[in-house]
Amino acid sequence: MNDPPQPLDGDPVARVVVAGASGYAGALSAQLVWRHPKLELVQATSRSDAGTPLERLYPRYRVPMTLTELDLDEIEGADAAIVAYPHAASAPVVAAMRGLGLGVVERSADFRLGDRPTYERWYAPHGEPDLLDGAVYGLPELHREKIRGAELVANPGCYPTASLLALAPLAAEGLLADVVVDAKQGVSGAGRGAGEETQYVSMDENAFAYKTGGHRHRPEIEQELDGLGNPVEVTFVPHLLPLDQGELVSCYARPTEAVDEGAVLALYRERYATEPFVRVVERPPGLRDVRDTNECHVFVTVEERGRVLIFAAIDNLWKGASSQAVQNLNLMLGLDEGMGIS
Amino acid sequence: MNDPPQPLDGDPVARVVVAGASGYAGALSAQLVWRHPKLELVQATSRSDAGTPLERLYPRYRVPMTLTELDLDEIEGADAAIVAYPHAASAPVVAAMRGLGLGVVERSADFRLGDRPTYERWYAPHGEPDLLDGAVYGLPELHREKIRGAELVANPGCYPTASLLALAPLAAEGLLADVVVDAKQGVSGAGRGAGEETQYVSMDENAFAYKTGGHRHRPEIEQELDGLGNPVEVTFVPHLLPLDQGELVSCYARPTEAVDEGAVLALYRERYATEPFVRVVERPPGLRDVRDTNECHVFVTVEERGRVLIFAAIDNLWKGASSQAVQNLNLMLGLDEGMGIS
Amino acid sequence: MNDPPQPLDGDPVARVVVAGASGYAGALSAQLVWRHPKLELVQATSRSDAGTPLERLYPRYRVPMTLTELDLDEIEGADAAIVAYPHAASAPVVAAMRGLGLGVVERSADFRLGDRPTYERWYAPHGEPDLLDGAVYGLPELHREKIRGAELVANPGCYPTASLLALAPLAAEGLLADVVVDAKQGVSGAGRGAGEETQYVSMDENAFAYKTGGHRHRPEIEQELDGLGNPVEVTFVPHLLPLDQGELVSCYARPTEAVDEGAVLALYRERYATEPFVRVVERPPGLRDVRDTNECHVFVTVEERGRVLIFAAIDNLWKGASSQAVQNLNLMLGLDEGMGIS
Amino acid sequence: MNDPPQPLDGDPVARVVVAGASGYAGALSAQLVWRHPKLELVQATSRSDAGTPLERLYPRYRVPMTLTELDLDEIEGADAAIVAYPHAASAPVVAAMRGLGLGVVERSADFRLGDRPTYERWYAPHGEPDLLDGAVYGLPELHREKIRGAELVANPGCYPTASLLALAPLAAEGLLADVVVDAKQGVSGAGRGAGEETQYVSMDENAFAYKTGGHRHRPEIEQELDGLGNPVEVTFVPHLLPLDQGELVSCYARPTEAVDEGAVLALYRERYATEPFVRVVERPPGLRDVRDTNECHVFVTVEERGRVLIFAAIDNLWKGASSQAVQNLNLMLGLDEGMGIS
Repeated sequence: MNDPPQPLDGDPVARVVVAGASGYAGALSAQLVWRHPKLELVQATSRSDAGTPLERLYPRYRVPMTLTELDLDEIEGADAAIVAYPHAASAPVVAAMRGLGLGVVERSADFRLGDRPTYERWYAPHGEPDLLDGAVYGLPELHREKIRGAELVANPGCYPTASLLALAPLAAEGLLADVVVDAKQGVSGAGRGAGEETQYVSMDENAFAYKTGGHRHRPEIEQELDGLGNPVEVTFVPHLLPLDQGELVSCYARPTEAVDEGAVLALYRERYATEPFVRVVERPPGLRDVRDTNECHVFVTVEERGRVLIFAAIDNLWKGASSQAVQNLNLMLGLDEGMGIS
Repeated sequence: MNDPPQPLDGDPVARVVVAGASGYAGALSAQLVWRHPKLELVQATSRSDAGTPLERLYPRYRVPMTLTELDLDEIEGADAAIVAYPHAASAPVVAAMRGLGLGVVERSADFRLGDRPTYERWYAPHGEPDLLDGAVYGLPELHREKIRGAELVANPGCYPTASLLALAPLAAEGLLADVVVDAKQGVSGAGRGAGEETQYVSMDENAFAYKTGGHRHRPEIEQELDGLGNPVEVTFVPHLLPLDQGELVSCYARPTEAVDEGAVLALYRERYATEPFVRVVERPPGLRDVRDTNECHVFVTVEERGRVLIFAAIDNLWKGASSQAVQNLNLMLGLDEGMGIS
Repeated sequence: MNDPPQPLDGDPVARVVVAGASGYAGALSAQLVWRHPKLELVQATSRSDAGTPLERLYPRYRVPMTLTELDLDEIEGADAAIVAYPHAASAPVVAAMRGLGLGVVERSADFRLGDRPTYERWYAPHGEPDLLDGAVYGLPELHREKIRGAELVANPGCYPTASLLALAPLAAEGLLADVVVDAKQGVSGAGRGAGEETQYVSMDENAFAYKTGGHRHRPEIEQELDGLGNPVEVTFVPHLLPLDQGELVSCYARPTEAVDEGAVLALYRERYATEPFVRVVERPPGLRDVRDTNECHVFVTVEERGRVLIFAAIDNLWKGASSQAVQNLNLMLGLDEGMGIS
Repeated sequence: MNDPPQPLDGDPVARVVVAGASGYAGALSAQLVWRHPKLELVQATSRSDAGTPLERLYPRYRVPMTLTELDLDEIEGADAAIVAYPHAASAPVVAAMRGLGLGVVERSADFRLGDRPTYERWYAPHGEPDLLDGAVYGLPELHREKIRGAELVANPGCYPTASLLALAPLAAEGLLADVVVDAKQGVSGAGRGAGEETQYVSMDENAFAYKTGGHRHRPEIEQELDGLGNPVEVTFVPHLLPLDQGELVSCYARPTEAVDEGAVLALYRERYATEPFVRVVERPPGLRDVRDTNECHVFVTVEERGRVLIFAAIDNLWKGASSQAVQNLNLMLGLDEGMGIS
């Protein structure tokens, strides 16, 4: 069986580097770029696995390319990059790529939080604070127009993606008085370098909460709700489930005023009527419904005592990471938003 | 390999019938009675599988007994029964057994809710309302003394068991102002007779909320919190997870007054210091920690903004059903509470 | 979110009916036809679920079409069909469709066995024996040219697909003296209408052999090995594994003469060098490597004592069923063989 | 909740050390000794986790003891030991313990192969060859009397345990002409220190063969078949399955002469009629049937063309490792063979 050529449809619109392509999200980004009809994958880099064929690590992705060390000289001809580095390691790489004129979608948290002290409280000293102002938070459903004009897009975390799609319609009306987000995610969310806790025998028939003292995705969620005009404190607790890909957020929102289920449902339907990747569904969504897709399925109901319950399901590696990165790249490059990820 | 004799330790203290022994919880009850050193399993009945050896349905339980139709004449010599019938079907059987003088632990909801209208709103017309007054809610950690003197014990639902053990210390101090319980359970919780939704292919790599319009276990939780002197409205949403046995409740409680994490932790430790089956643990409990045990592991923390988070894990078939039934039976019969289930 | 239009690339080459689209394989066939750039899905039928939107049963397939009863009058304008009916029920439907001039790929066993008595021994009286002669066994790697000219193609069973791809290179050289095939498959292989044995709680943490008295796929394997000029008795035992999609066959072949590992490996590499969907790999293939693909990964080695061991992995729903059906349809219609399934 | 005292039934018969108690099999051995009515667990040692409470690593085992470094001075008062060290590391520890007069059940391969060159071909130079002669192969169903009198018992590997129980009745009659063993095991079989291949995300929805070039358990199986008077070459290939505990061997045996299914079944039933832990069952055994038990379930059938098919299921951590070690210890100490493991 011969290696297939990259399935391009005519000349590519952009030559793309994927940096950090040996992790789960980076590898999927590489595959999505590879099979994209208008993007050419020119390099897939890895700090830990340079020299390894990507197909050895991820056979089913079928990307016949060998991982290399990132070499800035080599990527000069490239037009854009998806950077899937860990936080703090990412910022200097992004800065260098921006210096070369590449458009960048960045997958770590380094450019998600616009407020530097907040970033530094939850993460580390920021290596490239000057770039913060120009970065756009890459949730297309909230910031589509800004992303279109952006040169540096901070791809949201998986939990904020689902949580914000669940809460945005209420927040835009200023209806959130108090929010609990109970989030549940498959093991791929812990990343490829994980340890004993994510061994098969540790996770099989298991489930547990983690980071109960505060998870870094909480300030990201609060920043965006604030941006929608509804500053609110969010209680956010993630859990790990015995499955591979998938993320479900169960949101318990006390509204600022009594709301009617019909009206809330209409609000959600109207808000998402024209969104290509968000679907308001009629029963609580299951993770299988969205696996290997860029979709988010949202279900909303109002308890008889008045609390609003919202459930949103995504694939953490797709809409929560890699396919959303390509969605952002499509917007930045003027391509159809869903190209290569539908 | 010969069938083993029942491993009795001298003369039995009681001869026990398990009615409804073909379902998951009933079968495990039969096994726990079978291997109990002081209980003799005299009959295991089933409406749907009479005539089938219990070992064919549940090979690993190793109970060499054939399921029979329930015949009230045949159980006259028995001392006690565990009844694992569906609600509504259970009440008349319990009444008949009580008429024969048997002590009964009942596994459906028919005697859990002391308030008949509440029962009838959530379930069905009650067939034996006269028995309601004499029934004791069988959560030993709340009602141990009453259970000791009871002749009819209503074994709690699995979700109330974990939820109440998570919330009782706060409720006893009147500290609960508002509670969200996000509950997660393995597929065995849906019962043996389940349909397409619980097929392997449906549940594998899946997770979802269900009964978002109100689950029957909510009034049960509220009744007991009320009984502890802390009437409070509870938002309760169950989820199904891709695993067999196990249940995790994540409770988000807004306290009636500011509380200190150290004080809350001390409260929990003191409350459960002498409880044989509740353990206050130092990190969020995982379902594997309690699988196939009668234990409940509880973790409590206070968010920096003041919400109290409590996580409790049990095995839904054990502490959430069958081993708790035996725990109750032990108490009723004056045996050591943990006999046969430790 | 609006329903997407069918993603056709210009005018369709053929209008296709999928009959029996509510089962696992039929539904995937419908999805593959739906997203195929040159096939138009004109009808998806179901005997049991007519009236149900396909998306309610299989949300992630995103096929916005409602299942209908099969109505032969309605499909007159169609060019081709994939029939995913159970055996015996399939033959008359196929006959009717052939009468209307449709090219048919048939998914049951009704036209796989060219020898009617063999069929009738393993299945049932044959309803349309006159069609047997014209049917082509649809394993493209063995019968590509015949499939190109065929109007009725019998899509192979999942086990024969993997087993034959594992054994064909040796059989073509007459090297098989004795073969044991130990086959392992995920639960989707048992089909959607399965019962208690395939419930989540039954299969979780489980694995077992079944049909140890003889499985219907054995004569199909033997027929094709015979056709390659190497008649041989095959011991074939299938097992069920706790996973969704995937099939692994482990073949233990005693050769007719001593063979050298290097020569055997060269034989396999040469045989499959130009095959678009068979890959000779360097270590035993895992099911994850081929999930959701039309690929077959084959690994071959020779034991120091002379037995040849061959391992082949496919996705039972893809190459073992639905994508292979589309591969056959592509060939019949003169399209690129991998269109819509790569 | 207070730590429970060790549940001893009167004075212990023996004081037992478990060395290497941080791995999966060692930890389960410690638990089985802990809960054993006549054995006192005096020390649980670990090279990598000394100082860690065993309950932190394995909460559900509930052994309230802290792992220590192995200190030979400290174990002088002990009577026996279970040693769960890796091969080569085990031999000197065993020698030292034997020097102190302890009876030893050894879990590595260091004393399983009586033939030193065979050991050294598959493993490493042998550190204590003088002890080989006195070691007894600890499969009670084959060597019960010798184990009773032994002071050093080599606990069998998990694969040989199931394979030999599957094949011994035929081997004892000299009926095996050719054997293929296709073995399948859960991930715990790979041990606790495993790497990326045994991460949840790597194994989920996966299955594959490994060690296809020859597994170390093959000479162990052949040694014992030879000892039964039926020297035969065995093709042995192990596979990893996506589950925690459990092992299934599917054996394909060509008999030396034609055999009748009824006669073979009678042979198996008679052979195992009085065995407390082997059960000849009526359908192919599933892994769930034997999980968390010391049992082996065996199913045998004869193919119409004459091959004998035997399927045996065990729990790889129980009968395949830890509970069999206790079974051996019981025999060595003159206790009831099934004490503490039934």
